[in-house]
Amino acid sequence: MSLNEFSLIQKYFSSSAESKGVSLGVGDDCAILDIPEGKQLVATVDTLVEGVHFPVSASPGDIAHRSLRVNLSDIAAMGADPHWFTLALTLPKVTESWLCSFSQALLSDASCFGCSLVGGDTTAGPLSITMQVLGTIPIGSSLTRGGANEGDSIYVTGSLGEGAAALGLFDASADIKSKDIRSRLLRRFYRPEPRLKEGACLRNLASAAIDISDGLIADLGHIAKSSGVGANIEFDRLPVAPYLLSLAGQTCLNDWVLSGGDDYELCFTVPRRNKDFVETLIHSGELNAFYIGEMCKEVGVRSYDSRGQIMKLKKSGYRHF
Amino acid sequence: MSLNEFSLIQKYFSSSAESKGVSLGVGDDCAILDIPEGKQLVATVDTLVEGVHFPVSASPGDIAHRSLRVNLSDIAAMGADPHWFTLALTLPKVTESWLCSFSQALLSDASCFGCSLVGGDTTAGPLSITMQVLGTIPIGSSLTRGGANEGDSIYVTGSLGEGAAALGLFDASADIKSKDIRSRLLRRFYRPEPRLKEGACLRNLASAAIDISDGLIADLGHIAKSSGVGANIEFDRLPVAPYLLSLAGQTCLNDWVLSGGDDYELCFTVPRRNKDFVETLIHSGELNAFYIGEMCKEVGVRSYDSRGQIMKLKKSGYRHF
Repeated sequence: MSLNEFSLIQKYFSSSAESKGVSLGVGDDCAILDIPEGKQLVATVDTLVEGVHFPVSASPGDIAHRSLRVNLSDIAAMGADPHWFTLALTLPKVTESWLCSFSQALLSDASCFGCSLVGGDTTAGPLSITMQVLGTIPIGSSLTRGGANEGDSIYVTGSLGEGAAALGLFDASADIKSKDIRSRLLRRFYRPEPRLKEGACLRNLASAAIDISDGLIADLGHIAKSSGVGANIEFDRLPVAPYLLSLAGQTCLNDWVLSGGDDYELCFTVPRRNKDFVETLIHSGELNAFYIGEMCKEVGVRSYDSRGQIMKLKKSGYRHF
Repeated sequence: MSLNEFSLIQKYFSSSAESKGVSLGVGDDCAILDIPEGKQLVATVDTLVEGVHFPVSASPGDIAHRSLRVNLSDIAAMGADPHWFTLALTLPKVTESWLCSFSQALLSDASCFGCSLVGGDTTAGPLSITMQVLGTIPIGSSLTRGGANEGDSIYVTGSLGEGAAALGLFDASADIKSKDIRSRLLRRFYRPEPRLKEGACLRNLASAAIDISDGLIADLGHIAKSSGVGANIEFDRLPVAPYLLSLAGQTCLNDWVLSGGDDYELCFTVPRRNKDFVETLIHSGELNAFYIGEMCKEVGVRSYDSRGQIMKLKKSGYRHF
């Protein structure tokens, strides 16, 4: 990549918009940022690699949306508010049309979430995108993985299984015919909804939270392990879009919902003293979440079927396109 | 990469040491960090790709040192103090011995700079390392690129040219025979010294600063452009290790020193009112820096030779191994 090509890239990622808390943005050695009094900084980083986290066929706009939102989902899981992000973009070659589509999609999507680009680096190499998102949270009110206790109720937001089902779009043998379903799954894959509103709403209410990226069982397992307790969930209570069953068949559906990953919903636990209030929020429509089980003393995570039997789980592994 | 391999990686990058300002470190969805009152946050990101920024032959320890120090150099150029960093590591395959060497070198070098790892992501793909370093600086005292004025004196720290000379180590035709020189250049390439002490010392003294990664002319050019002025430097005043001339020949030396890049020294400007004080710091040995020229009205950067002639410059471009 020549220096001229670097300038070209600079051009696409310099945003002239004044952003909250940005004392100095893109274009110097570092960004300088102001953290309001009474707030703590939260930071997260995620890399997406072509052929591993998105197919080679993905459009620049799709890649931008997915990269940003996967990171914002981690901010949501802490109950924090996103403010800024940096971008490390590795590109095999510089194509103006690619950069133009990617940067437009990225900056406009980020601004919808109140988040602005404050720094970046561009390098030559196989296509990959690393973003670090920075945010803030009132001191002491973050949702971590380690705060759950025996007897806490377990909830998930939104619905489960579509993240895994969406992978069928990129698998010729899956043959998903319905246009509506294809477009719904594509949206779910490339534009997962970071549950920022829900995360913020749960500050000082939830005892623990995580976003579901590896699958419900695995991620709830992280909460259980960090908290030194276990979890029992009731499969029939899990929120699942009805069309998934006809797409999947029951065995496959179980895997998608329990071990599939890529849903980017929040899984959180609520202590007894806050349960009534959380239920009120849910019934009033302020919080889109579903009760799915209870934290217990016995370590590990178990899913029970409608007959009260423990379900056998397929272990979720890593996949690539 | 299987989930087990992810756990393996987690193992190498979890540091049990308590770190300043880290309310929550590696292992949750985000890190939570405390910014002291009266301080601003600074953030920078850099990616190093195998075969582009370091040769395929580089050892894991060497890669760790270079990746970290290149990032810390940006923090130094702002006059800030580094505190925390995140790591996004993309690896073609997981080798325990590689991870062990890399993480040991990284965590121990980082701790020498008062910097602790607070988050990370590991993905499968061609080897590349993205780090984002976070630091703080007293409000309003950062050194930016845009503060230089006509008449300000220009300085550089350390010495120039060895960053470019070191590339000869990876070029069979260069044939550097001396063991001492080889080892000095290897150190310069893999362990560039981030000028953190010098940067902090220049707060409220320098009007502008940058670290020299693209070459003196290019980087001083960034200061000049951002500040809306120009710069004249005297080639004979540039600090250059004497052995470089015999290694290079004069033409090659000029290129190394002026356009070579990879030196990671600071270039900074000092307004007239602070010049005496800066000279005192230099003479007392507190600041390792050299006067090299003056900012002027005429835009652009010019280097004058001993006869007062403007030198012709080879344009620095991008290179890879």
